[in-house]
Amino acid sequence: MIEQKDNRPHVVIIGGGFAGINAAKALAKAPVRVTVVDRKNHHTFQPLLYQVALAVLSPAEIASPIRTVLRKAGNIQVLLGEVTGFDLENKNVKIGTLDLPYDYLVVAAGATHAYFGHPEWEQIAPGLKTLEDATEIRRRVLLAFETAEREGLTQGQHPPLNFVVIGAGPTGVELAGAISDISRHYMEKDFRAIDPAGARILLLEGGPRVLPAFPDDLSASAEKQLTELGVEVRTCAMVTNLEPGWVTVGDERIPASVILWSAGVAASALGRMLTGQTDRAGRVLVESDLTVPGHPEVFVAGDLAAAKMGEGKFVPGVAPSAIQMGKFAARQITRSIEGQLREEFHYRDKGTLATIGRSKAVADLGRLHFSGYFAWLAWLFVHLLFLIGFRNRFMVMSEWAWDYITYNHSARLITDPIAGESAKSKGTS
Amino acid sequence: MIEQKDNRPHVVIIGGGFAGINAAKALAKAPVRVTVVDRKNHHTFQPLLYQVALAVLSPAEIASPIRTVLRKAGNIQVLLGEVTGFDLENKNVKIGTLDLPYDYLVVAAGATHAYFGHPEWEQIAPGLKTLEDATEIRRRVLLAFETAEREGLTQGQHPPLNFVVIGAGPTGVELAGAISDISRHYMEKDFRAIDPAGARILLLEGGPRVLPAFPDDLSASAEKQLTELGVEVRTCAMVTNLEPGWVTVGDERIPASVILWSAGVAASALGRMLTGQTDRAGRVLVESDLTVPGHPEVFVAGDLAAAKMGEGKFVPGVAPSAIQMGKFAARQITRSIEGQLREEFHYRDKGTLATIGRSKAVADLGRLHFSGYFAWLAWLFVHLLFLIGFRNRFMVMSEWAWDYITYNHSARLITDPIAGESAKSKGTS
Repeated sequence: MIEQKDNRPHVVIIGGGFAGINAAKALAKAPVRVTVVDRKNHHTFQPLLYQVALAVLSPAEIASPIRTVLRKAGNIQVLLGEVTGFDLENKNVKIGTLDLPYDYLVVAAGATHAYFGHPEWEQIAPGLKTLEDATEIRRRVLLAFETAEREGLTQGQHPPLNFVVIGAGPTGVELAGAISDISRHYMEKDFRAIDPAGARILLLEGGPRVLPAFPDDLSASAEKQLTELGVEVRTCAMVTNLEPGWVTVGDERIPASVILWSAGVAASALGRMLTGQTDRAGRVLVESDLTVPGHPEVFVAGDLAAAKMGEGKFVPGVAPSAIQMGKFAARQITRSIEGQLREEFHYRDKGTLATIGRSKAVADLGRLHFSGYFAWLAWLFVHLLFLIGFRNRFMVMSEWAWDYITYNHSARLITDPIAGESAKSKGTS
Repeated sequence: MIEQKDNRPHVVIIGGGFAGINAAKALAKAPVRVTVVDRKNHHTFQPLLYQVALAVLSPAEIASPIRTVLRKAGNIQVLLGEVTGFDLENKNVKIGTLDLPYDYLVVAAGATHAYFGHPEWEQIAPGLKTLEDATEIRRRVLLAFETAEREGLTQGQHPPLNFVVIGAGPTGVELAGAISDISRHYMEKDFRAIDPAGARILLLEGGPRVLPAFPDDLSASAEKQLTELGVEVRTCAMVTNLEPGWVTVGDERIPASVILWSAGVAASALGRMLTGQTDRAGRVLVESDLTVPGHPEVFVAGDLAAAKMGEGKFVPGVAPSAIQMGKFAARQITRSIEGQLREEFHYRDKGTLATIGRSKAVADLGRLHFSGYFAWLAWLFVHLLFLIGFRNRFMVMSEWAWDYITYNHSARLITDPIAGESAKSKGTS
């Protein structure tokens, strides 16, 4: 293998999300060589995924090829591949038939959706973690309008348009708010037989309030802002069953044109592949320096890590903590090489923002809580700032400005490779 | 049905391509009501599809929802659906179980790929007609580089990168030139183990020269410009067999990392569904007013129409002729309603442009032929001008400027819903 000619320690980073990319960047000038492994060729800016799902942005505007993000670092190489196992004793990562030896390992494979023991619900109610998820959600939402229009035109009436979002964390709130935006502002002039603004949007939350990770007053404000957007919020509403077109809450069976899932997160299966010491969600219970117990050369960072914050609390699975963990792991690797002792990881909470819809958001900056237009501006600003790549920042800003002024979503395309494939031979239009 | 309450004549337009959209727009103020039917929800600006395939542009930048393009025309409705049959006697279009009655019909269902009796080649060598085709080609081209890099990093060597484009019409020339651009200019800093500029690009043409529809001198110039870009051009090279990874030309079996098809066009199957009077490619042999013989209320426009130009020649299947045909059909419908006689369709050839690569193109403006930088500028200008939607024009212009200055393609994402789906449960990165 090529790398063995090189005497510098080899750092393998699994995952090109916030944690992985930031770990790699922090090692760009360290006396190591780095291999970043990901199943996908791109880093995705997950906080804006819902805008791809609701047709505001295009996939390319919130994602960049990982090798382009890291192109300037000559000591970093990128490998497209899927990890299939770890051999911690021999310091080896298995990628299919390939063995990748390491001196230091950073596992930052992130999280996926959890359906609470109902994997069959995933087809019925997609969640939002990847670009593919986002285009699938976009397809379902836009097709619901198209189907209703078609029935309205041809039958003179159509079944009600019901969108049900399950789980009122930040993603659920964003999705519900964005469906309201798209149906109330962007679609109204496009249809003849249906009134998109008449769409019913239901946000179901199992707990007692929306945005449960936020302080009480901001949860209340978020619920009020959602209601102003026409979103029906139901708290303490536990979903007991899902079927295509139907959501059951307790005894009530609610019809649904589209069902979206943002109710649960599970760690990547790589956590359990790595060690037996995981929590119920599959996150790895790490030491204070983010390493796997007994393996000071193996770090876990980002959503896959269960890192204690004291008082039985864990570091939250948000972008800033993933960035901090990635940089921290890189720094510990450099310190080890220089013969220095390890540090303890401390999460610095710089505040949390959640957007709800056009001009609506909440901001929790510790003692300072605010809502509405200024929270929304702060959200826009922070997200533009952290978006990777100047070009993306410029394009997204242009899209947002265009959108805000013209009420015209740009990316309202339904692409369906499977339908496209089967219909191709028929050759219509 | 709702429409039957309306006494205005009903015009049904099948297909939202250049011909269909232009026919609909030309009827926006006519005393008719119009229904546009398409399998897809978007109009695609086909001349720029190859830029989506080669990761310069995003799908949303060259496509717009049909209902948004036509939103201002209150007499036009849009129906997402696939035509399954025609009943010309009873003036009815069948869309699955739905019957759509018409007074006038415009069929503009376009064309698809022809594999000369080898439908199994389609999987091996995709063509470029839809956004789905473009993202599939992008996926294959980018994956070829990723696979080579991976083998280079892990095995110390990789099989040669061979791209084979079959058919040297405008699309084949664009694809070959764009692969050269991407490998020679845009990728070189991103890889460690491979030299993207070393990729071999082979353009195979069955006939004696590239761009056969252009005059001899421009074909020669195009071939020279392609050679300057590092594309190997082989004319009189008839492909006799395709297998995954291999192209056979006569007795020679050429290895190929990616095979792309731009060698044949067949009319949509709707042509033969409409009438028995079609040519070998399935195009409808229309009267001089573009109607189906015996059915003055049924027009065929765009690539699906075989319209005579005199001397046994037919109107070429290009965007300007589709636009002219669509407008012409709309005008004849208005004239019929006003009791005027039909006109004869005459194609006005305003010249043809073909782009080859960065700063390279050919232009045929009748007596005036030119090549190179100015032909390329003309191509850029004309394509921006005809792109539908001011927003798209602005975004595409921004992308091109960014691209030209920074040599940085923006849309280099591999999205693969199927792989994404199956891998989701494994939950890595």
